[in-house]
Amino acid sequence: GLALGLWRRQAALAAAREDEEEKELRQRFMAPPVSGLRELRRRRRELRSRMELLIMETQAEMCRALTALDPGASFAVDSWERKEGGGGISCVLQDGEVFEKAGVNVSVVSGLLSEEAARQMRSRGKSLKAKDGKLPFCAMGVSSVIHPKNPHVPTMHFNYRYFEIEEADGTKQWWFGGGTDLTPTYLNEEDAIHFHKTLKEACDKHDPKLYPKYKKWCDDYFYIKHRGERRGIGGIFFDDMDSPSKEEVFQFVKSCAKAVVPCYIPIVKKHCHDSFTPEEKLWQQLRRGRYVEFNLVYDRGTKFGLLTPGSRIESILMSLPLTARWEYMHTPLESSKEAEILEVLRNPKDWVH
Amino acid sequence: GLALGLWRRQAALAAAREDEEEKELRQRFMAPPVSGLRELRRRRRELRSRMELLIMETQAEMCRALTALDPGASFAVDSWERKEGGGGISCVLQDGEVFEKAGVNVSVVSGLLSEEAARQMRSRGKSLKAKDGKLPFCAMGVSSVIHPKNPHVPTMHFNYRYFEIEEADGTKQWWFGGGTDLTPTYLNEEDAIHFHKTLKEACDKHDPKLYPKYKKWCDDYFYIKHRGERRGIGGIFFDDMDSPSKEEVFQFVKSCAKAVVPCYIPIVKKHCHDSFTPEEKLWQQLRRGRYVEFNLVYDRGTKFGLLTPGSRIESILMSLPLTARWEYMHTPLESSKEAEILEVLRNPKDWVH
Repeated sequence: GLALGLWRRQAALAAAREDEEEKELRQRFMAPPVSGLRELRRRRRELRSRMELLIMETQAEMCRALTALDPGASFAVDSWERKEGGGGISCVLQDGEVFEKAGVNVSVVSGLLSEEAARQMRSRGKSLKAKDGKLPFCAMGVSSVIHPKNPHVPTMHFNYRYFEIEEADGTKQWWFGGGTDLTPTYLNEEDAIHFHKTLKEACDKHDPKLYPKYKKWCDDYFYIKHRGERRGIGGIFFDDMDSPSKEEVFQFVKSCAKAVVPCYIPIVKKHCHDSFTPEEKLWQQLRRGRYVEFNLVYDRGTKFGLLTPGSRIESILMSLPLTARWEYMHTPLESSKEAEILEVLRNPKDWVH
Repeated sequence: GLALGLWRRQAALAAAREDEEEKELRQRFMAPPVSGLRELRRRRRELRSRMELLIMETQAEMCRALTALDPGASFAVDSWERKEGGGGISCVLQDGEVFEKAGVNVSVVSGLLSEEAARQMRSRGKSLKAKDGKLPFCAMGVSSVIHPKNPHVPTMHFNYRYFEIEEADGTKQWWFGGGTDLTPTYLNEEDAIHFHKTLKEACDKHDPKLYPKYKKWCDDYFYIKHRGERRGIGGIFFDDMDSPSKEEVFQFVKSCAKAVVPCYIPIVKKHCHDSFTPEEKLWQQLRRGRYVEFNLVYDRGTKFGLLTPGSRIESILMSLPLTARWEYMHTPLESSKEAEILEVLRNPKDWVH
């Protein structure tokens, strides 16, 4: 009787604690998670669940930080389902005081890999053995692009994702990918150093080799080949990361995700009230045009999205700016501030040592 | 003495006539042709030369017609050379009264086909046997995109081109491609009928099967798959046209090129003074965004240009509008004028029978 009573009391306490935790998560997240809170808590030890909680938390942190800076604006929150499996939560703030367009998207999708998507992965060196031409996959991630109004506040992008593919013999290939990068309209060296230093610190906690490697990968990846320019002043970028172990890579990704707000938000705070001229706004619009060029012509994530049947196009293309401009043969004057940033986009610099 | 005198007189007359013709062409064209007037006249019977004269003439006709409608604005004319062989003439009018951006570009390039371009052609079914991996090619064409300011004046695009590739055994593959198509912000049925009717008449002179076939090809080609929409209300489009004979295809292409001005200019004249609201301008900007999506993600010409080493990027991307806009989840109201054009972009109509 006593033992049973104790057990009951403990079980009731545990249940109450879980309810409390669940309530707290529910309040903290932008919307109920795709896989359901109950399911995530039930499978809480599995990496998939831990990653889904991390991306939900990252989304919420970012949205809260942005709203605090642009109190008049608010995020539209759309939960969507994918017919072929899974879904997502898109949070978009549009035409605010501080932000022209800010999107923070979570997606957790599963299904069968499209032919074209498999071809793209194989071209990166993956050997994917399909069963009857079918490759079951699961992909989840958080991705975000923030386009501020003021040309002295840079655009920022980040994305952290986890991928699993089941091969013909039942073995699972898995990997993480992601990165955080900055696209200023004008160069501010202090900001560039702060941004890269914060990323470096997040990487160094795990392995001092990571930052230099992923900094270079970022400069290489965000290259607009037909312009001979990078999209921005970089940050970190990595893909196909599957060692030393699932747990260690997850911890690294977690550190990167936690660094997003401290990387960027201080820069927004510092410049969002800077004055600017119509000419500076125009240069921002031309750089927005380049952003569109990169995203539509080269970006792997966008391409994967456009090729995946049933993907939610509005969530993929929310990375595009509200407005952009293309002028024929626009060339900045020598020694101008516009020429200064172009020089860095053509010849990337090391910002921290 | 007499015979020699007569011969001399005739030769002098012929030379004077040729000088006169050359002078006239020089005045008529926007700039000296890439291959040189003298060379073109020397090889005047060759199809390459006749095509180059046709594209030069088409460029000049279009530029004159546009300038007549926007007298305050003028075309910047850039002659450029391509290091790897050939060059071009780009004519761009920017920020005029009537036109936001109008580009008319001629290019005559030759060299060796890039790996990637050859792969793209093979994927369309061409069997290209290379000698030591090298495929000498010659490509020439005129292409143009006209983006007017007034949302009641549609955007127009045309392109006519000729392609030659020399295979390993010395045989030459050749083909023509091209088309003319219209992208209105709002539907005007009368304009749509005039546009398609003018194209149909140009096609019917050669073969009544051509218009229906190329009208459908146009609807299929300008498809923005990820949106489920066409770029515009179509026109004609064809590629790889190599029968019944080089001469007959050339005559067909000539008829199409001559139809460009009568297709479009009356529509501009009719609407360029229409009044419009800020909401109509905003819808135009969103449709410009879709134009950018098609051109950067799907357009074969743009892709070929971005893949061809040494191609002139400013001339390729002059097809992009001066300004564009992307709003998250923009959906027109039911039964609105915006919904009306969307319906036609989703389900193309036949405009002439």
